[in-house]
Amino acid sequence: MKATLMYCAGDVRTEDVPDPVVERPTDALVQITTSCICGSDLWPYGSMAPADGPARMGHEFLGVVTDVGAEVAGLQAGDHVVAPFAYSDGTCAFCREGLYTSCVHGGFWDEPGQQGGQAEAIRVPLADGTLTKLPVAPDSALAPSLLTLSDVFGTGYHAAVWGGVTERTTVAVVGDGAVGLLAVLSAKLLGAERIVLMGRHEDRTGLGREFGATDVVAERGEEGVAKVRELTGGEGVHVVLEAVGARPAYDQSFGIVRPGGTISRVGVPQYEEAPVGFGSLFAGNVTLTGGPAPTRAYVETLLPAVLAGTVEPGRVFDRTVGLDGVPDGYRAMADREALKVLVTP
Amino acid sequence: MKATLMYCAGDVRTEDVPDPVVERPTDALVQITTSCICGSDLWPYGSMAPADGPARMGHEFLGVVTDVGAEVAGLQAGDHVVAPFAYSDGTCAFCREGLYTSCVHGGFWDEPGQQGGQAEAIRVPLADGTLTKLPVAPDSALAPSLLTLSDVFGTGYHAAVWGGVTERTTVAVVGDGAVGLLAVLSAKLLGAERIVLMGRHEDRTGLGREFGATDVVAERGEEGVAKVRELTGGEGVHVVLEAVGARPAYDQSFGIVRPGGTISRVGVPQYEEAPVGFGSLFAGNVTLTGGPAPTRAYVETLLPAVLAGTVEPGRVFDRTVGLDGVPDGYRAMADREALKVLVTP
Repeated sequence: MKATLMYCAGDVRTEDVPDPVVERPTDALVQITTSCICGSDLWPYGSMAPADGPARMGHEFLGVVTDVGAEVAGLQAGDHVVAPFAYSDGTCAFCREGLYTSCVHGGFWDEPGQQGGQAEAIRVPLADGTLTKLPVAPDSALAPSLLTLSDVFGTGYHAAVWGGVTERTTVAVVGDGAVGLLAVLSAKLLGAERIVLMGRHEDRTGLGREFGATDVVAERGEEGVAKVRELTGGEGVHVVLEAVGARPAYDQSFGIVRPGGTISRVGVPQYEEAPVGFGSLFAGNVTLTGGPAPTRAYVETLLPAVLAGTVEPGRVFDRTVGLDGVPDGYRAMADREALKVLVTP
Repeated sequence: MKATLMYCAGDVRTEDVPDPVVERPTDALVQITTSCICGSDLWPYGSMAPADGPARMGHEFLGVVTDVGAEVAGLQAGDHVVAPFAYSDGTCAFCREGLYTSCVHGGFWDEPGQQGGQAEAIRVPLADGTLTKLPVAPDSALAPSLLTLSDVFGTGYHAAVWGGVTERTTVAVVGDGAVGLLAVLSAKLLGAERIVLMGRHEDRTGLGREFGATDVVAERGEEGVAKVRELTGGEGVHVVLEAVGARPAYDQSFGIVRPGGTISRVGVPQYEEAPVGFGSLFAGNVTLTGGPAPTRAYVETLLPAVLAGTVEPGRVFDRTVGLDGVPDGYRAMADREALKVLVTP
C-alpha cells in the first residue's frame, strides 16, 4: 500500500510499504478514507535531520475498520471511525479522567513501531480505547469536519476549556493556522463575547471572523501587544489561546494577558526554556496551562454540533490531494499557499 | 524613630529616621506593635549591591492607627490593624476581583517613597484599601498568629487556593520555611488528606507534621523526586506548592507533579527563564500558576480560625527581638538558626 514518509527536512515521499497486519490482540486495522497534513508536521518538515528519517507521517484520520484483534470488543469490520492524534487504552487512571494523552500505555503515531495516517491503511493499537465510531457513512459530506475531531478542532477546544473561557472572559487567540481558527470557534462555543484573533493572513483571519473573532490584530511582537492592550483598556485579555508553539508567540502571550489571567498553550513548543519569573508570569499571577490535547475526550462533546451542521470546522481545509500529492501538500502549507491540506487516499 | 535599613548584602542597621507624616489625604500613620523578618528579605540580604541601598525594610506588621488623612473614611486613631505586604486602593478592577497585588494604584513597601514595617511607625498609603481592623487588643496573645495574615499565612493559603487543593488532591509542598509550613496548614484547611512536605530541617518538618503533613521527604533534587514518585505510585502529586523561589525548587516541582496537575508558586522566583516546554510542563498538560499573594483578600477568610485558636500559624516564629536586635535576626535566619524572627519595637 501507499504511505507517506519524511526522509528529512523538505523531503517527503509517497512510497509503497507493506500492508498493516494485526500484531497484537488489541489492534484494529483501518482502511483510511480521509486524512490530512497538520501544522505540526511542518516543524520536522523544516528541521528534520536525515538520521531521524525516514518517518511515517500523519496523525489525523477517518477510516473503516477492516479487521480486529481477538481482544477488541467494541469494534468490528465495517465500522466508520475517527482516530485522535494519540492512542490510549481508555482504562488507566489518566484516561478515566479524560487525559488520554497521558495514558500509561498510550503514545503518539510518530513513535517507533507505529504507522502514519497519511496512508491507505493503518494498524491502530489499543483500538477499543482509541477509536470512536461515527454514526454517518464514510462518504458523508461531513467528512472534513469530522476529521477535525482527530486533532485541530479538539485541540482548539482543549485550549479554550483549559484556559477557562466563559461568557465573562475576553479572549485572544495567537495564530491564524487551523488550530488558532478552531480555538476561535471553540471560544465562541463556550460563550466568549470578545475574541481577538492575532494573525496576518487576511484569508485566514477572514474565516476567523466567520468563526467568531470580533477583532483582528495583524501586528506582531511589541506592536501587536500594544494593539491588544489598547483594545482592552490597557488591561490585557483574561485568556490567551496560544496556537503556534514558537517562542515569539509565547512572548506575545505574556505581553497581552491580564493580571490574574491564563495563557493556554496548544501549539507544540519549539523551545524548552522561556520566561516565567517576576517580569513575565509571576508578578501578575498569570497562569500557564495546556499541552497535547486529549482530543479523544472531546469527540462526544463536539460531534453533535458537527453532525447538526451548526459548526463547520472542516472549512479550515482549503486544498485536497491524493496520496501522490502529499509531498506537494507539505510544500504548499510550508509556503503558506494552503491553510490545511485534506488527503483522500 | 528607629527603623531598619539594609545597606547592602549582609549589612542591616537599626537607625534613627524622621517620624512619618501624613503626605496624602488617603494616608494613615500606624504605630507598629509587631512586625517580623521575611524569608524573602533574605534574598537582598544575600545579594544586594551597595548602589541599591540603603533600603527601608519590612513588609509585615500589626499596629495602631495614630493619625489619618482627610479622605480616610474607614479608620480612626486607636484602631488595631493588620497590613498586607502590598498596599492597594481596594476599588480598582483588580481589587474588586480580589487580586490586590495587581492594584492599578497599589504597590509594595520596598518601592521608592515607601517606608518599612521593621520600624516604630510607618506611613500607610491608600489606608482604607490596605488595612484591616482587628477585633482584639494590640497586646493580645494572638498577635504572632495575626501577624501571619500580613504575608506568610495568606501566601501559603494563596498557593493552596490557586493550586486547586481540595479533599481529592494529593499535595506536595516544596520548602520548609514559614510559607511552606503554612502552605501545609492551608492544604489541610482545604481538606487535603495526603500532604508531602519536602524539607530537610527536622525541627521545621516536625512543625509541618503538626500542621498536617502526612509525609516528609528530606531528599532533594533527583533523589527527592524519586521519593515523591515512589510515595504516589509513580504518578506524582496533583498539586505542588512551591514556597522557595530558587530554580532547583522549580525543577523539583515539575519532577514530582502528576500529568494534568498544577504547580502553584509563591516563592519569589530568583530566576526569569525556566523549562516550560515538552520535556517539563507541556507533555503532561501541567499548569503553572501563582504569584504575589493578595493576602488582603484572605484576611477575612482566615481570621475566624485564628481568633478561635483552631489554627496557630504564629508557631512559625521561634525567636523574638527588639528593633536593635533586627540585624542579628537577619543573620540568624540566614544561618538557619531561626525559622522566622518576630520583631517587637
